[in-house]
Amino acid sequence: MLSMICIDKNKFNSLEDRKRISLINSLTGVKSANLISTQSKDKVTNLSFVSSVFHLGASPALFGFVIRPDSVPRDTLNNLREHPYLTVNHVNTNIIENAHQTSARYKAVESEFDKCKLTEEYINDHPAPFLKESKIKFAAKMIREINIEENGTHIIICELLAIHLPEECLAEDFTIDITIAKSVGVSGLDQYINLESLGRVSYAKPDKIVKWFT
Amino acid sequence: MLSMICIDKNKFNSLEDRKRISLINSLTGVKSANLISTQSKDKVTNLSFVSSVFHLGASPALFGFVIRPDSVPRDTLNNLREHPYLTVNHVNTNIIENAHQTSARYKAVESEFDKCKLTEEYINDHPAPFLKESKIKFAAKMIREINIEENGTHIIICELLAIHLPEECLAEDFTIDITIAKSVGVSGLDQYINLESLGRVSYAKPDKIVKWFT
Repeated sequence: MLSMICIDKNKFNSLEDRKRISLINSLTGVKSANLISTQSKDKVTNLSFVSSVFHLGASPALFGFVIRPDSVPRDTLNNLREHPYLTVNHVNTNIIENAHQTSARYKAVESEFDKCKLTEEYINDHPAPFLKESKIKFAAKMIREINIEENGTHIIICELLAIHLPEECLAEDFTIDITIAKSVGVSGLDQYINLESLGRVSYAKPDKIVKWFT
Repeated sequence: MLSMICIDKNKFNSLEDRKRISLINSLTGVKSANLISTQSKDKVTNLSFVSSVFHLGASPALFGFVIRPDSVPRDTLNNLREHPYLTVNHVNTNIIENAHQTSARYKAVESEFDKCKLTEEYINDHPAPFLKESKIKFAAKMIREINIEENGTHIIICELLAIHLPEECLAEDFTIDITIAKSVGVSGLDQYINLESLGRVSYAKPDKIVKWFT
């Protein structure tokens, strides 16, 4: 039996910064672990760990992600403002340490590919590199940014251009099984999560019992 | 060795709707599985499966989530416009079937709590019920909605009011270990994911090797 506690607004706002950040960051549940690659106008590549990529729609194919306030330089945001092409690359169990290392504060003139022992891969003339070590990855173009005035963050809205993935991950109905590619999740700031498939369930209808079908 | 394939924009746009939706929905990686509870002005409660909750900031404590176009009635959106209070409740391994069932199309006058055999729990006068069966859950208030003109979706921005969680999940540094509460993830439309902790890693600094510390 777990013992429930309550942390209300007064309590979490009075925590020291690091504790409040750890708490609030781990609240929303498991997050996808992606490395977003961009390129500056001087062709310096950048690789940034992003745990906030979210699905926005399939027609047109759109997704979004969050970039923190640009009160300090944000290479990904600066690059996208000059050159709106990016790639999103799933982190997998083989490259967790390298991926985590990209969140260290490198200079804008340094490429995280080089510093973190990760490999650039250019595919089909897309003007931003993919991450070779990533198995599920996609090319995209930024459409616009939405500024969140409440805290200075930016929601970046992107259009999907092309998907690269192992054939083995693609089911007959075109669902991707991310567990076959050993994609990982992240919780909070620094906990990595192994993903294990529990199976798929049937489409929910009123007065029909949900069935597991794989 | 996995064999990589490419699905470009022409290909995914020419897929039949259900395949394209399955593909694009499973692209961004693992998603958190949450049930969002709201209440209509007539006090009919609603419980909605949402896999798009994302962290937006810790000061002030904000999060967001996506609601699909309101070209058909969206009970959660309608409720929040009338009465902006909500709760977000992690889905855990014990309630996957019930949680999935909430995505069936029930009438606005029917409560998913009742229809899906889940239990309302009112705590500390918050004017929306929590889900009793959920272990990690939080109270919030909608601040505003952002309409995404590109596809008619709505990004809902919320302020965190109170957190309820098992004491056993809270580390000394206030990181929440969601795996102790058996929170689950979801991939695509219908694949459930068991979350297994791989451990936590040290804060990344240039020229310092990342260490696993639990």
